[in-house]
Amino acid sequence: LHGAAAAGIQGTSAMKKLRLITAIKTPYLANGKFDLDAYDAIVEQQVQNGVEGLIVGGTTGEGQLMSWDEHVMLIAHTVNQYGRHIKVIGNTGSNSTREALHATEQGFAVGMDAALQINPYYGKTSMVGLTEHFRAVLSEGPAIIYNVPGRTGQDIPDDIIMSIAAHENFLGVKECTGNSRIEDYHSKGVVCWSGNDDEAHAARHCHQAQGVISVTSNLIPGLFANLMRQKDDDLAARLEDLISWLFCEPNPIPLNTALAMCGLVKPVFRLPYVPLSQEQRKRGAVLLRQVQQHIPGCKEVRVMDDSEFLTPR
Amino acid sequence: LHGAAAAGIQGTSAMKKLRLITAIKTPYLANGKFDLDAYDAIVEQQVQNGVEGLIVGGTTGEGQLMSWDEHVMLIAHTVNQYGRHIKVIGNTGSNSTREALHATEQGFAVGMDAALQINPYYGKTSMVGLTEHFRAVLSEGPAIIYNVPGRTGQDIPDDIIMSIAAHENFLGVKECTGNSRIEDYHSKGVVCWSGNDDEAHAARHCHQAQGVISVTSNLIPGLFANLMRQKDDDLAARLEDLISWLFCEPNPIPLNTALAMCGLVKPVFRLPYVPLSQEQRKRGAVLLRQVQQHIPGCKEVRVMDDSEFLTPR
Amino acid sequence: LHGAAAAGIQGTSAMKKLRLITAIKTPYLANGKFDLDAYDAIVEQQVQNGVEGLIVGGTTGEGQLMSWDEHVMLIAHTVNQYGRHIKVIGNTGSNSTREALHATEQGFAVGMDAALQINPYYGKTSMVGLTEHFRAVLSEGPAIIYNVPGRTGQDIPDDIIMSIAAHENFLGVKECTGNSRIEDYHSKGVVCWSGNDDEAHAARHCHQAQGVISVTSNLIPGLFANLMRQKDDDLAARLEDLISWLFCEPNPIPLNTALAMCGLVKPVFRLPYVPLSQEQRKRGAVLLRQVQQHIPGCKEVRVMDDSEFLTPR
Amino acid sequence: LHGAAAAGIQGTSAMKKLRLITAIKTPYLANGKFDLDAYDAIVEQQVQNGVEGLIVGGTTGEGQLMSWDEHVMLIAHTVNQYGRHIKVIGNTGSNSTREALHATEQGFAVGMDAALQINPYYGKTSMVGLTEHFRAVLSEGPAIIYNVPGRTGQDIPDDIIMSIAAHENFLGVKECTGNSRIEDYHSKGVVCWSGNDDEAHAARHCHQAQGVISVTSNLIPGLFANLMRQKDDDLAARLEDLISWLFCEPNPIPLNTALAMCGLVKPVFRLPYVPLSQEQRKRGAVLLRQVQQHIPGCKEVRVMDDSEFLTPR
Repeated sequence: LHGAAAAGIQGTSAMKKLRLITAIKTPYLANGKFDLDAYDAIVEQQVQNGVEGLIVGGTTGEGQLMSWDEHVMLIAHTVNQYGRHIKVIGNTGSNSTREALHATEQGFAVGMDAALQINPYYGKTSMVGLTEHFRAVLSEGPAIIYNVPGRTGQDIPDDIIMSIAAHENFLGVKECTGNSRIEDYHSKGVVCWSGNDDEAHAARHCHQAQGVISVTSNLIPGLFANLMRQKDDDLAARLEDLISWLFCEPNPIPLNTALAMCGLVKPVFRLPYVPLSQEQRKRGAVLLRQVQQHIPGCKEVRVMDDSEFLTPR
Repeated sequence: LHGAAAAGIQGTSAMKKLRLITAIKTPYLANGKFDLDAYDAIVEQQVQNGVEGLIVGGTTGEGQLMSWDEHVMLIAHTVNQYGRHIKVIGNTGSNSTREALHATEQGFAVGMDAALQINPYYGKTSMVGLTEHFRAVLSEGPAIIYNVPGRTGQDIPDDIIMSIAAHENFLGVKECTGNSRIEDYHSKGVVCWSGNDDEAHAARHCHQAQGVISVTSNLIPGLFANLMRQKDDDLAARLEDLISWLFCEPNPIPLNTALAMCGLVKPVFRLPYVPLSQEQRKRGAVLLRQVQQHIPGCKEVRVMDDSEFLTPR
Repeated sequence: LHGAAAAGIQGTSAMKKLRLITAIKTPYLANGKFDLDAYDAIVEQQVQNGVEGLIVGGTTGEGQLMSWDEHVMLIAHTVNQYGRHIKVIGNTGSNSTREALHATEQGFAVGMDAALQINPYYGKTSMVGLTEHFRAVLSEGPAIIYNVPGRTGQDIPDDIIMSIAAHENFLGVKECTGNSRIEDYHSKGVVCWSGNDDEAHAARHCHQAQGVISVTSNLIPGLFANLMRQKDDDLAARLEDLISWLFCEPNPIPLNTALAMCGLVKPVFRLPYVPLSQEQRKRGAVLLRQVQQHIPGCKEVRVMDDSEFLTPR
Repeated sequence: LHGAAAAGIQGTSAMKKLRLITAIKTPYLANGKFDLDAYDAIVEQQVQNGVEGLIVGGTTGEGQLMSWDEHVMLIAHTVNQYGRHIKVIGNTGSNSTREALHATEQGFAVGMDAALQINPYYGKTSMVGLTEHFRAVLSEGPAIIYNVPGRTGQDIPDDIIMSIAAHENFLGVKECTGNSRIEDYHSKGVVCWSGNDDEAHAARHCHQAQGVISVTSNLIPGLFANLMRQKDDDLAARLEDLISWLFCEPNPIPLNTALAMCGLVKPVFRLPYVPLSQEQRKRGAVLLRQVQQHIPGCKEVRVMDDSEFLTPR
């Protein structure tokens, strides 16, 4: 055995205690390949500012725009460079069971601690098919199930979750449908991470969420770690506008734009993602400057010109 | 120039006149690979029973479960075997612009007549990103745009369609949101194919749809060709229950099950798809037997045992 | 059944009668992708000047520098565009049996008439392994076995060839070790094509070769067709220096350079291939001009500057 | 920077001091996938018995039968599990410069210490092309150049090696053409590892080889470590017959057979490799039993029946 798969019950138990997990950004070079130096710099700041786990190649990290060999390579790179300091969760799910099994097997072979497993978006399937899919991928190793009907077009019903919740590799749910459902799952013994940054503080402190899988923590890891460690309504209120702006277009468009504006990544987008408009950037710059001292490595927040952004093919 | 791309305005014009396009089933061998013999038998019946075009590797054909080389191979095979008798439309879209461009380029290189292009499901994007994506893929050759918010989680707004409608490679829209929208698009000069079999007859004869991209026509191509050629309320009414049953679970689960029950494909499912339950199959058998003489090649409709179905990994 | 695989004994028999087969050049765009327009122009000239078959993605066509999906796409494109006028033989062999089987299966699925099957170069294997490899790939469809120890580091012994010669899909041997062996194979009923342009005329007319798989015929298809149709010692002698020059560096380096000098392809090389030196090009220009009227489409032979050549990554 | 690429001069210098590097075997499960448990068991014994480096996916490890994603995954797995105890050298070379660059870039991204770079076998190239190829791949990180004309059909001449020897990422040569050449290279400051187990002891102690990249050390790592540490003519003589037997068919056929006979790997072969004949196995069993106490983990040496061996497709 190897990786977290080897860690057994202890490993699974540790995973269930994570509070702040970042859906980490994948930065690009001008030629469209991964910018591993920029990636490493961001991950180092995550480690140093209280982030406990990373989703590698999530929708935020644009796993959907990676070839599988790129994706597994990034998981392996992350494990190899930072695996002793932070939990590495590979987004090795897919709407194709075959692809999910292949990627998940490879992810565990290169040492990831757990997988994030999505229900089959776009192609969809029946409830029986959903169960078969989850049972297949859970057999590969520990997994968080990801429910995001806004992206998949198909909610994962509670009874499907409960039917797999006893599986030894089931860790819990990244739930995006709201805090009342999280509270309900908690009452049934299912660990939840909020998938909505705007609800995460309340989820954690008022609705029994274990924590959050966050987009915003790419930018302000320390502040988000604080939000997860202790109830802080003032801080939560102060971050509302920034979080709202980070979802003014489908994620990760605003995050990508923000990281470029902060000088933390090259302003390179893989299509179909494109930067926010200048007007949106102006609005964001104001919000980013308010928390600038909490954005690690950010020396300046620039609105930037449209001409500075690249979308290589 | 080559393929339909070479045909220019004449080719584009011919595509816009198609009435019955089948989203063709991909049959499998017990080992999970394509069963090209079964595929060819089905396609031959399509050609002989009035179907004018095929979507190869659509969601019905499970393009989402294919590797791209399998997908392009199937397009090439179809062009090579039947391209002189039927229009071949490859579902070479993707939520990754890079993958869509690659697959679409290869599809045209092997002679497909047009592409079906989906908006970026799951990953989604902004309206500007959507336009960039469509402009990129339209540059490769003629395309039908596919709008199916129930799968993608994101409707393609009318103004996006109108902003690309003048592109020389824009053929029209496969629209799944209903007939009033189809009628509206028609009034603006945009050709539409209904993506809903249950609404297709009305769409064609009462709401100005050009035709349908059909699932049901895999089974009863001749009847569906009749429905598209002339208004026939009786026939439409008689097919209602069958069509309804074919969508009692996410497509293509019922279709796959039906084709196996009719002996036209091996009972092999690629996960996450699984067969309908025996109860559902019993219900379907009654409906299928009512049209059995219109199902080409069907000698018998069997309910089958659960044990007969295979889901190879 | 489909492709030549379907043609059965008639198809196999027709393949064994081919005299002039060209190992066709793959031209590139400046971005390193296939230049299908240039390819089509060359293939059209092949068809019109007496070439009867093509090896697609041979070592000359740089199959070893293609991804398999590119390779199969090029086979499919060729079948689709020219399959009614010329036999299409895909070089779908590999030193990995698994890859050879996959590519060969796909090649036949897209309609190729036969495969060229190499023994496992570089990795090599035992004689028992060699037989297993050939039996495996022959099960996919008609094949010419390719023996070129100068590339593979391992000769295919006569007894291996004889042990598979009775297989219904065995077409013959592309033999590069010389004419006495060809003559010997012929005496045992094995069809041979010479793999050496400099020996091909003698092979055909004095040593019982069926024909040639030629590099030179990319440039002068008509003259090479003449050489194969009838004994013409004068013509053979006149071509000696040109043929010799075409192998002054490992093929296809001189051919690629020559086609660029003749204006038939863009001067683009995929590494590890690089153009001939200017001195070598000067020597070649003299020889090419001597046959310029037999090089279809060649309006001018230019020595070119080093700076005109591209090697994209 | 990351991996050994990051280590700079110190890292390069440490690599040049390695004496015993094993071209490690890749074991398979019955389904043909990697058997990582068996692999890990073998590698642990390598670490514990004095082996200082591993070639992952060499010709011995059957890199030529891997897809690149499998290959990089195995490198990543090895780095992640054993990278703190042993140097990991990925065989990321290829006869396609593009593939070599891609695989080498990924290998360094997942932490390998160095690459093994082959000259373009099968496709071959000119001397200028060879230099271009090596310069391209050397730019990715530290590399050992591999010269094995018996596999590649093309010797790498001394002047090519000397023309790249000053590159900061050039580590040295795995040389298979004999000890006099190794001695000559040493006199010019080029580090060499013998690629021939039968000559390795003499190479190291009489001809200035730095060490060996060994096949035999898969079986008897401790004895081979002794051979490299100190001159021991008796031991070298005692191993002669075993080493000779290990090359009675193209490597890794005898090694694979031996490891299966020793119970260290499942008896699974990827074609075109097949097991040794029973007669050859009987001969080998005698030789293996003579060193059995030096084969870590070997409880018994069995001749085995032919029927026990598997060659999954």
